[in-house]
Amino acid sequence: MSVDTICALATAPGGALGIIRISGPQALEILSHIFSKNLADANPNTVHFGRLITSDAVPEVIDEVLVSVFRAPHSYTGEDSAEISCHGSRYILNKVLELLIQQGCRMANPGEYTMRAYLNGKLDLSQAEAVADLIASSNKATHQMAMSQLRGGISTELSQLRNQLLKLTSLLELELDFSDHEDLEFADRSELLELAKNINNHIVRLAESFERGQAIKQGIPVAIVGKTNVGKSTLLNALLKDDRAIVSDVHGTTRDTIEDTIDINGVTFRFIDTAGIRQTSDQVEQIGIERTYAAIDKARIVIWMIDEEPSQEELSKITKLCEYKKLITVRNKIDKLDNESFTLVKIPLVEISAKHGVHLSDLEQAIYQAADIPTLNTADVIVTNARHYEALCRAQLHLHRVLNGMAQNISGDLLSEDLRMTLDTLAEITGGQITPNEVLGNIFKNFCVGK
Amino acid sequence: MSVDTICALATAPGGALGIIRISGPQALEILSHIFSKNLADANPNTVHFGRLITSDAVPEVIDEVLVSVFRAPHSYTGEDSAEISCHGSRYILNKVLELLIQQGCRMANPGEYTMRAYLNGKLDLSQAEAVADLIASSNKATHQMAMSQLRGGISTELSQLRNQLLKLTSLLELELDFSDHEDLEFADRSELLELAKNINNHIVRLAESFERGQAIKQGIPVAIVGKTNVGKSTLLNALLKDDRAIVSDVHGTTRDTIEDTIDINGVTFRFIDTAGIRQTSDQVEQIGIERTYAAIDKARIVIWMIDEEPSQEELSKITKLCEYKKLITVRNKIDKLDNESFTLVKIPLVEISAKHGVHLSDLEQAIYQAADIPTLNTADVIVTNARHYEALCRAQLHLHRVLNGMAQNISGDLLSEDLRMTLDTLAEITGGQITPNEVLGNIFKNFCVGK
Repeated sequence: MSVDTICALATAPGGALGIIRISGPQALEILSHIFSKNLADANPNTVHFGRLITSDAVPEVIDEVLVSVFRAPHSYTGEDSAEISCHGSRYILNKVLELLIQQGCRMANPGEYTMRAYLNGKLDLSQAEAVADLIASSNKATHQMAMSQLRGGISTELSQLRNQLLKLTSLLELELDFSDHEDLEFADRSELLELAKNINNHIVRLAESFERGQAIKQGIPVAIVGKTNVGKSTLLNALLKDDRAIVSDVHGTTRDTIEDTIDINGVTFRFIDTAGIRQTSDQVEQIGIERTYAAIDKARIVIWMIDEEPSQEELSKITKLCEYKKLITVRNKIDKLDNESFTLVKIPLVEISAKHGVHLSDLEQAIYQAADIPTLNTADVIVTNARHYEALCRAQLHLHRVLNGMAQNISGDLLSEDLRMTLDTLAEITGGQITPNEVLGNIFKNFCVGK
Repeated sequence: MSVDTICALATAPGGALGIIRISGPQALEILSHIFSKNLADANPNTVHFGRLITSDAVPEVIDEVLVSVFRAPHSYTGEDSAEISCHGSRYILNKVLELLIQQGCRMANPGEYTMRAYLNGKLDLSQAEAVADLIASSNKATHQMAMSQLRGGISTELSQLRNQLLKLTSLLELELDFSDHEDLEFADRSELLELAKNINNHIVRLAESFERGQAIKQGIPVAIVGKTNVGKSTLLNALLKDDRAIVSDVHGTTRDTIEDTIDINGVTFRFIDTAGIRQTSDQVEQIGIERTYAAIDKARIVIWMIDEEPSQEELSKITKLCEYKKLITVRNKIDKLDNESFTLVKIPLVEISAKHGVHLSDLEQAIYQAADIPTLNTADVIVTNARHYEALCRAQLHLHRVLNGMAQNISGDLLSEDLRMTLDTLAEITGGQITPNEVLGNIFKNFCVGK
């Protein structure tokens, strides 16, 4: 397959500068046709100042630019490539792309640069996917997960799993060779079973990290519930206040709508169904209890606001509703009372005044602790990608068949197919197996153009 | 004055890549503190791949980046500088700026890079201003004007003017030296007067180009007028149709609101008061004739739509209203009639069917010709900047005093002050004279940050 040369705008339009990327075997030749210097012999990793000029009868100067030259295989894509740093006028950027296409470039598809990097062995597939996550990262937690994946975190884990699986396979093959020696078999099997169980635990641990990874990536859902006039809306506004600047800053990035979110220690918390809370109390009264149930159902953390001692019945009800959630009970309006303790109900409380901003940081820390985010400095690998999760689940199914077979003393040659399937399925994550074009297309279509 | 090192995001946030610029004597030293390679000895105009790392006790990798290194005086600013090409995540870009500031950089003010380029003699002031115009350019005409100015178009004209003014000054001084020879004086004066008039014409021509330059820069105002139901709204929609994609493309660039504009041969035409046209005919009927007058008043080109032969009275009225405008008379609905010629009124007509899109390109060409834009490939310099226009007008006042003085045979030494003022005033445009900080601040405050 002959590779063509692609071009795309790699930056958002509207800044002082715009960067246009070109990659492919003809990159430097094509660019030389419209650049005031010949780049054919330019050294790799050098920057050249010059003019972009049309090839019309009366040449027109489009811009004065800087061109960075990269040469295969030492470039992002692994191909010859160049980056043009133009002035950020939409007219200029369009014109430059138009000239490049006239000279034989093709507009790049979304993620095509990174796909080429993968195809040329510069990144494995999980690292390539991390590039998109890195660009979309909006806080410390999502950034660290993406950076860990880009730097090969998941790839390293999978390579450890692969080595263990290969060891298991070769031990099973060894067992076959000695199958005449019936006295040896049993001892070997228990050791093999131990190894297989370890591998299984490892896969389960990775798969289980997915829910947490998704929560961090999408923001951890929090519901605020409680009776009318208990101060839910005041609390929401108080929590959001400090963070408003950052939230409005997000405008124009990858998120479509600005939600009610706050960042605590670099983790995003997303408030569920706040439209209800923001409405007038009359309306909330009307919409009633179903809405509260729905919000709790979608939440991972529930903030139950009270301003007087709840009845035992109310307490049982909320505890039941939040059986699989993290429940934080918040006693509001502590400024109004003389801070009397509740007499009957003994539950841990965060005592605040939403109106006067008292103890809000205690509540924030309680929310952060309820999220149960592992310390993100550790080398723990967290699976954030649905494709990886799905592959891990399938690998687990194959490995279960191996485990069951071993428990039933099925002979090693009958287990090898499932072992091979386990290995192949895990290899899909990094793309070590040959990946069909269709799958690649699906992976890279969610990238932005220019990356 | 010791120069500090500045940093800023030079691209719009939200793309695959973001570029952060650093400039100043400490640029490479500061960057080396957070970059995985030491750039102190890096060659100029080279690109370096590496990691940006925090200087915390447990260092955190922020991004894998490309750093381009430039060295004084061969950089945009004329200072040591660097450009960091990061992944375009807002989190990463903010974090990198934060690290640079921790290490001793200061956030750049709007236009500060270009201001430093000016202060270091890399650009004159009119060229520096052209950089902002270039970034804001949204079509071929505004792009060409900005590019001509950036490439020194106005600077060259002014330097010619300066040489002529210096010649005039020295000839006047020569005249003083020979002032005893009364017989010589008259002959010299007529020659000098000729030279002074030429200079004046040159300045007037430049100043007069401003109105046209402003029109091109802001779009040339066009009014569509005519009776109710003559097809004004249909015509507007038909003209806008082809251009809609481009117009919506402009969203998010420098324009605040999307107006009804079309581009013809790279020039923008802006339709005046189209809200009236877009309203239902009932409302237009009510708002009446004042609105038409106001639209004509603001327009440079008036499209008068008719669908039947106008009376001599109507014709006189519109001709009078458009005395200082370009009037295009458009006969609509030619599909309905058998294309009968008007019998009484003989005026040039563009005959169209707005509904069926017949001859619309003829109308577009008529609009373009009415705009009377000089062929933009010529080296004609067009003044687009209000500051330049204002300086040209003041220079003209000083020169008029010189001309009057010469006409009244006032002696050369009495004219020299006004001659010097003319020279100084023209020099303000390129900043050849020492420019007060306040003026510089005003010029550069309209730039985007990062340029």
